[in-house]
Amino acid sequence: MSSTLGIAVIGAGRMGADHARRIGRTVGGARVVAVADPDGDRAKEVVRGLEGACAYTDAAAAVAAPGVEAVLIASPGPAHEEAILLALERELPVLCEKPLTPEPAGALRVMEAEQRLGRRLVQVGFMRRYDAEYERLKELLDAGGLGRPLFLHCRHRNALSPSWFTSDMLISDSVVHEVDAARWLLDQEITAVSVLSPTPSSAAPEGLRDPRLVLLETSGGAIVDVEIFVNCGFGYQVQCEAVGEAGSARIGDGHAMVVQSAGRWGGEIAQDFTVRFADAYDRQLRRWVAQAARGRAEGPTAWDGYAAAAVCEAGLTAARTGVRTAVELTERPPLYR
Amino acid sequence: MSSTLGIAVIGAGRMGADHARRIGRTVGGARVVAVADPDGDRAKEVVRGLEGACAYTDAAAAVAAPGVEAVLIASPGPAHEEAILLALERELPVLCEKPLTPEPAGALRVMEAEQRLGRRLVQVGFMRRYDAEYERLKELLDAGGLGRPLFLHCRHRNALSPSWFTSDMLISDSVVHEVDAARWLLDQEITAVSVLSPTPSSAAPEGLRDPRLVLLETSGGAIVDVEIFVNCGFGYQVQCEAVGEAGSARIGDGHAMVVQSAGRWGGEIAQDFTVRFADAYDRQLRRWVAQAARGRAEGPTAWDGYAAAAVCEAGLTAARTGVRTAVELTERPPLYR
Amino acid sequence: MSSTLGIAVIGAGRMGADHARRIGRTVGGARVVAVADPDGDRAKEVVRGLEGACAYTDAAAAVAAPGVEAVLIASPGPAHEEAILLALERELPVLCEKPLTPEPAGALRVMEAEQRLGRRLVQVGFMRRYDAEYERLKELLDAGGLGRPLFLHCRHRNALSPSWFTSDMLISDSVVHEVDAARWLLDQEITAVSVLSPTPSSAAPEGLRDPRLVLLETSGGAIVDVEIFVNCGFGYQVQCEAVGEAGSARIGDGHAMVVQSAGRWGGEIAQDFTVRFADAYDRQLRRWVAQAARGRAEGPTAWDGYAAAAVCEAGLTAARTGVRTAVELTERPPLYR
Amino acid sequence: MSSTLGIAVIGAGRMGADHARRIGRTVGGARVVAVADPDGDRAKEVVRGLEGACAYTDAAAAVAAPGVEAVLIASPGPAHEEAILLALERELPVLCEKPLTPEPAGALRVMEAEQRLGRRLVQVGFMRRYDAEYERLKELLDAGGLGRPLFLHCRHRNALSPSWFTSDMLISDSVVHEVDAARWLLDQEITAVSVLSPTPSSAAPEGLRDPRLVLLETSGGAIVDVEIFVNCGFGYQVQCEAVGEAGSARIGDGHAMVVQSAGRWGGEIAQDFTVRFADAYDRQLRRWVAQAARGRAEGPTAWDGYAAAAVCEAGLTAARTGVRTAVELTERPPLYR
Repeated sequence: MSSTLGIAVIGAGRMGADHARRIGRTVGGARVVAVADPDGDRAKEVVRGLEGACAYTDAAAAVAAPGVEAVLIASPGPAHEEAILLALERELPVLCEKPLTPEPAGALRVMEAEQRLGRRLVQVGFMRRYDAEYERLKELLDAGGLGRPLFLHCRHRNALSPSWFTSDMLISDSVVHEVDAARWLLDQEITAVSVLSPTPSSAAPEGLRDPRLVLLETSGGAIVDVEIFVNCGFGYQVQCEAVGEAGSARIGDGHAMVVQSAGRWGGEIAQDFTVRFADAYDRQLRRWVAQAARGRAEGPTAWDGYAAAAVCEAGLTAARTGVRTAVELTERPPLYR
Repeated sequence: MSSTLGIAVIGAGRMGADHARRIGRTVGGARVVAVADPDGDRAKEVVRGLEGACAYTDAAAAVAAPGVEAVLIASPGPAHEEAILLALERELPVLCEKPLTPEPAGALRVMEAEQRLGRRLVQVGFMRRYDAEYERLKELLDAGGLGRPLFLHCRHRNALSPSWFTSDMLISDSVVHEVDAARWLLDQEITAVSVLSPTPSSAAPEGLRDPRLVLLETSGGAIVDVEIFVNCGFGYQVQCEAVGEAGSARIGDGHAMVVQSAGRWGGEIAQDFTVRFADAYDRQLRRWVAQAARGRAEGPTAWDGYAAAAVCEAGLTAARTGVRTAVELTERPPLYR
Repeated sequence: MSSTLGIAVIGAGRMGADHARRIGRTVGGARVVAVADPDGDRAKEVVRGLEGACAYTDAAAAVAAPGVEAVLIASPGPAHEEAILLALERELPVLCEKPLTPEPAGALRVMEAEQRLGRRLVQVGFMRRYDAEYERLKELLDAGGLGRPLFLHCRHRNALSPSWFTSDMLISDSVVHEVDAARWLLDQEITAVSVLSPTPSSAAPEGLRDPRLVLLETSGGAIVDVEIFVNCGFGYQVQCEAVGEAGSARIGDGHAMVVQSAGRWGGEIAQDFTVRFADAYDRQLRRWVAQAARGRAEGPTAWDGYAAAAVCEAGLTAARTGVRTAVELTERPPLYR
Repeated sequence: MSSTLGIAVIGAGRMGADHARRIGRTVGGARVVAVADPDGDRAKEVVRGLEGACAYTDAAAAVAAPGVEAVLIASPGPAHEEAILLALERELPVLCEKPLTPEPAGALRVMEAEQRLGRRLVQVGFMRRYDAEYERLKELLDAGGLGRPLFLHCRHRNALSPSWFTSDMLISDSVVHEVDAARWLLDQEITAVSVLSPTPSSAAPEGLRDPRLVLLETSGGAIVDVEIFVNCGFGYQVQCEAVGEAGSARIGDGHAMVVQSAGRWGGEIAQDFTVRFADAYDRQLRRWVAQAARGRAEGPTAWDGYAAAAVCEAGLTAARTGVRTAVELTERPPLYR
C-alpha cells in the first residue's frame, strides 16, 4: 500500500459524485485521477475538491488518462457498454453501477469481451450484497438454517419517485435490485415473471403505474413476491422475509432507536437509500479497491448483470401483456461458473 | 337478562366442544341445553359437564328440544345447510362455523330462506373480526389513516396440518379466513383469484401442495397476497400488513414477552389458533349471545358466507388450471346491504 | 350456577362504577344488588342501569341488604377497613381495591378478623396478577427459565396525574402495584426501600416530586428498581424486565399494531390503565365471582395487603429522609402461608 | 493525502493488535510504523503482517522511532500516563484507550502537560461516542426532542468475564463507559454515586460481586442507573433508555434480523463488544487519523478521562462502604471548556 490506486470515474451525476467523495473520504488506498461527464461543468464541480484529479467531457479520454488503474462507471445505463469496453481494452478493473446494460444483448457483448481476456475484470454495483443485514440473511440461508427456501417476500419502497421516473423503471431500475438479491440469496436463476398492478396510488404522478406486485419464479421452485412502491410517502424501505422449510427470517425493519412521545412509540424511517445503504456502498467500494489493486474483480459478475437484464426484459413484457412471461437465458459461460 | 339463553350446539367435535365449554365458562347469560352429534358418545361426552343439557344424535331433534332459543353450528361443512334451515324454520338465531356452506349454491339457498323471514338471523363464525388487532386495523382503515388501501400482505401459517388435510383445503378451509378478512377490512368484493405454488415443502405430507401463494384482486383495485403454509413447523401465525396511499400497518407479530437467553432474544410463537384467537372466540360468542337474546343477528352475514364460498370456488379453479380466475357473484340482496 | 351471586358494591366513584358495569356486562353468574356511596346521587347514577339493584348512602346498609352474598369495595382507602369488617361479620367474601388499608395497622386488624373466622374471605385487588403478560412472566420465573432472579427493572408511567395526587401517593398509590408484583413474581418479601429523586419534571404540578426512582431490596437478595413517573406525558405504560442468572424477560412493550406513516414506524401507547389492564380486571372479577359463589377467596390475601402497606410506609420514610429504610413485618400467620 | 500518517502503537495485547489491524485494513491515510510491548514476541507478532513497521519492547523507543507522527496507546491502564507524557514531549497527537489513567491524580498530570503545550493533543478512547445509535440518541437529546433529561436507564452486560476480572473492575473498567456516555449525552457532570449489590449470580466466579446496580446523580438533577452484569451468560448487550420531560428513547435492542423457527421468533445477541461496536471503533480511528494528520485532537478530552476516573474512584468507595458518595472534581481548565 505504498501507492494508491488511480481511479477514473465515468459520470458526474448524483451517483458519480457520491462515489468520488467516498473514494476520498472513507476508502483508503485509492484516489480519483479523472472524472468524465458530457456536461463538463458537472465533471469540474466533482473534481474541484479532489487533489490531482482532472475533468473530461469524453469517457475515452478519462479512461486513457495518465495514472488511471481502474474505472468506476456511474453514467446513465445506455452509456455503460461503451465505457466498459474501453476499460476492458486497457485491461482495467471496472465497477459498473447497475444496470450493467439496459438490455441483455449489451451484457452479452460485455461478457464476450471479458471472456476474450480470460479473466474477470467487471463488477456490477449490486451493493445490497455488501449490506450487513443481507449478509447475515445470506449466511443463514447458506448454512441451511431455514431449510430449503420457499418464498422471498420483498418490499421495496421509496418516499417519492423523481420526476423522470417511468412505469418501466419500477421494474428495470428498482426491482432489478430484488432480482439480483433473489438470485444471490437463493443461488438460483429466475425462470418466469408475472406482474399484478393495483389501481395506482393517487400520490403517484399521473400515468405512473405505482405500486406493483412483481412475482418471480425460480429454478429451484421458490416464489419471490416484490411490492415495488416508489411513492409510498413514508420513507425508503427495503425489507425481505425468507421463508424456508424450517423457518423464516426477516431483514429491513431497521429498529435502531425506539422513541416514546406524544402517545406513540416507534422510530424514524430512513428517507433515502444513501442513508439505508451508506455502509453497503462503503464496503462495496473498499472491497473493489482492494481487488482492483491486484488487477482482479470479485462480487457481482457480468453474468449477474446479464441475468438481471434478461429478467427485467421479461418483467416488462409481463407488465405490458398482463401474462406470466418465461425468462430466456443463454448458457452460462465457464468464466462465470 | 333475568334468565339465560338456551343454546343447541350442533356438532360435538373439537370446535363444538370448545364452544360448549366457552358458553359455560366465559359467556354470561347463556347455557347449553342440547348437543347433537351423529356420534352419540361424543355428544354425551360434551354434555357431561353441563348441568341441564341433553345429548342427541339428530340435529333436528336438538334444534327442536325444549328450551332451545338459539343454535350454534359446529358440524362439518356439508352438514351446515340442513342445520341452518332447521333453525330458520323455527326463527332461531344461528351462529354457524365457517364455511357457511362448502359451495356457493348452498349459501344462496340459506340466503333465500333468511330473506323469506325478512330479517337477519344467521351469523357466520369469521371470528377474526372480533380479534383486538384486526379491530384496530379495521378502525385505522375506516378512519382513512392509511389512505386508500393498495395491498394486503397476509401470512397464514400452521405448525402442522392434520392428517386429513387436502390441497383444496389450503384454500377453502384456511385462506377462506383471509378472504373474509380482506372483504371486511377493505369493504370490497374479491373479483379474481390467481394461485402460485412453489415446490412443496418436504415437511408437508406426500401429495399436499403446501405452501401456496394466493393472489386476490378486489373491486376497489387492491391486491391481496396470501402465503398459506400449513406445515411451516414453527407455529401458528396470522399476520396482515395493509399498505395504503398514506402508510402501512401490520398486525400479528404478537410480541408480548421478550426473553433474552443463551445468545438469543425473542419470544414464543403461539402453536395453535385456540391460543392466538382465544379472546376473539370469547368476544364473538358474547356478542352473538347478547344479540340472539333479542332474536337478532349481527356480525358476518350469510352474504359474507356466500361471497367467501364463491371466492374459494374460483380459487380452487385457479389452483387447478394455473390461470387467473374471475369470481362471479350474484346481485347482493337488499337484506345484506 | 342456576342462580347468580348477589354483590354489594361499596363506593360509586370511577372504580366502583367500572366494576358495577363489568359485573353486568362481562362477568357471568353475578349481579349487583346494592351500591353504597356517601354521595347518594352517585350511587343512584350507578344503579340506574342495573336491574334489581338498590342505592345506599351507608356501607353497612348495603352490606346488610337482602340478597347480598359478596362485597366489592371500591371506596377511598381510609374507608376500606370498616367495610371489610362489616363483610367479615356476615362471613361474606370480599374483593377490596388496593390499598387494603392505608397503614399496616389497619391491615393487621383485618387479618385478625379473618383469622378468627378461620378461613380466607378477603382478596385484594392487585389485578396485575391477572394480566396475561404478567402471568407469562410469572410462569417463566416459576419454571426457572431465567434462573434465580437478580433484578426487576420496572417502569410505571402515567400520562398525567389527577389534580389531587400527592408526592406520597407516587409510592402508596402507584408503586404499591410494583411492590405487590415484585413480591408475587419473586415469591419473596421486601426488606428495605431507598428512594432517589431527580429534579421534578416541569410537566408535573408545582410541588409534586415526580418522577422518582424507588429501590426495593428483597429477602432473596434481589434488587427491584421502579421508575414511577405520573406525568410522563406520552401515555400509560407498565413495563417489567426480570433479569436472572440465566437470562432476562421483558413485558409491557405492547407492540400490537405497527404503523408506518409520515417518516415514522411505530404504534400507539395506551393512555390509561383501563385500556392496558381491561382484560386483567375482567379476569380478576370472573375468578373472584367463581370463588365467592363457593364462599371462598383466592388471589392476593390480606397478608399481601398488609405487606404492601408496610413496604409503602417504609418507602415514604425513605423518601422523606433520603435514607435507605428497612421494612419491618410481623410474623406471617399460618392462614396466609 | 499524498503521504500517510505514521503511527506508533503502544501495547500489543488484544486491543493493540486490533487497532493495528484496523489501521491497515479499514482506515485510509495511515500506517503503523512502530509497535511496542514489554513482551517483544507479542510486538513482533503484530508487526509481522505490517509492511514497514518495527517492533520494540520499550514505549519510549517506539514513540521516538523514525516516521512516528501520532501515538495510539493500548497498554494496561497503569502504563498510560508515562506513554502519554512521552508523546506530548514530542507534541504528537495521542489516542489513549480508556481509562486515561487509573486514578484522577495521573489524569491531572496529563492535563497539566497538555495545558503547557496550549493545545489539545490527547483523545480518550471512549468509542461509544462514535456508535451510530448513541449518536442518534445524542442528537435527539441535544435537539430537545425528549425535553430535559430525567433518567438514563442503562444495561451493560457481558456473556462472561475474563478470569482476571475483579469486583472493582465492574466499576472502573465496565461502568466507566456509562460514566462517559452519561456525561456526554447529558452534557453534565456526575455529582454522586451509590451502589446496590444483589446476591451475586452463581454464574459469576467465586468472590466476584456480579451483578451490581450503580446509581449516578448528575449536576443537572438527573439520575442514571446502570445494571452492570459481566456474567449474564446470554451475550454482550449495551442498552440505554433516556427519559425526559417530553418522552423517552431507547437504543441497544439490536433487532437487525428476526428469525422464526422451532416455536420461537427472535434474533441473535452479539457475543462480544468487537461485534457490537466494530463500526464505532472504525469510525473513532478514522476521525482521529484525519485530525492527527493536521496535528490536532477532537473527541473525548483528557478532562473527560479525568472526570471518569474521579467518578469511578467515588464509585469504588460507594461500593465498599455501601453509602452514597459525592464526587469531587477540580475546576475545569479553560482548554477543556
